[in-house]
Amino acid sequence: MNTAHKWLNEVKWDEQGLVPAIAQDAESGEVLMFAWMNREALERTAESGEAVYWSRSRRKLWFKGEESGHVQRVREIRVDCDADVVLLKIEQVGGIACHTGRRSCFFHKLLDDGRWEAVEPVLKDPKEIYR
Amino acid sequence: MNTAHKWLNEVKWDEQGLVPAIAQDAESGEVLMFAWMNREALERTAESGEAVYWSRSRRKLWFKGEESGHVQRVREIRVDCDADVVLLKIEQVGGIACHTGRRSCFFHKLLDDGRWEAVEPVLKDPKEIYR
Repeated sequence: MNTAHKWLNEVKWDEQGLVPAIAQDAESGEVLMFAWMNREALERTAESGEAVYWSRSRRKLWFKGEESGHVQRVREIRVDCDADVVLLKIEQVGGIACHTGRRSCFFHKLLDDGRWEAVEPVLKDPKEIYR
Repeated sequence: MNTAHKWLNEVKWDEQGLVPAIAQDAESGEVLMFAWMNREALERTAESGEAVYWSRSRRKLWFKGEESGHVQRVREIRVDCDADVVLLKIEQVGGIACHTGRRSCFFHKLLDDGRWEAVEPVLKDPKEIYR
């Protein structure tokens, strides 16, 4: 174990070797997306300065923006009090974090009448993003 | 199944019946904490207007603030594009979300030299909070 990576050992990885990761716009504070990281994803995020996640469905590293170009430049990496959740303060290149073409993935709002409504605009057609 | 709770059925609960939940300050945008919710927790959150989580360690509903008085008044409930992560926009009563007495649980910042440093002040001694 590389002792230079003591900080990675201090993260409490779950039984699958993962931690939840929240990406937040460093300027506006907007929560843009939620994903998972394994040890390598977090290490590469810190080293490269661009967000790398672990895709649970594809079972491989997910270099955010690898297809869309919408990479996330990392300004700050934080963990919570239990060291089992990561918060990234990022600059979202292209202004679009969501695969639906919206700024944030959290665009469904619960209305008083008990319906989820999409309250954020699509900034770019996903067909244009993922050619 | 109560059809009035269609919105709860639209949430994609994981194999343990849970979803991650992020609590964000509705005014400042600060990410205050991360926890889990089951169906009943989310239902009660929506009904009561105060955040209710599922404590995985205690295996019971966790009425945030039940001991500390630091309840979270919910202004908005959102889900992400996949409907498997909840975002609460809240007003944090007492200004303290973390059991360490800090405003936010995300107070450990990764420094350039590879150390986590606590960068947020303790606002109140936890011994004073949990008597």
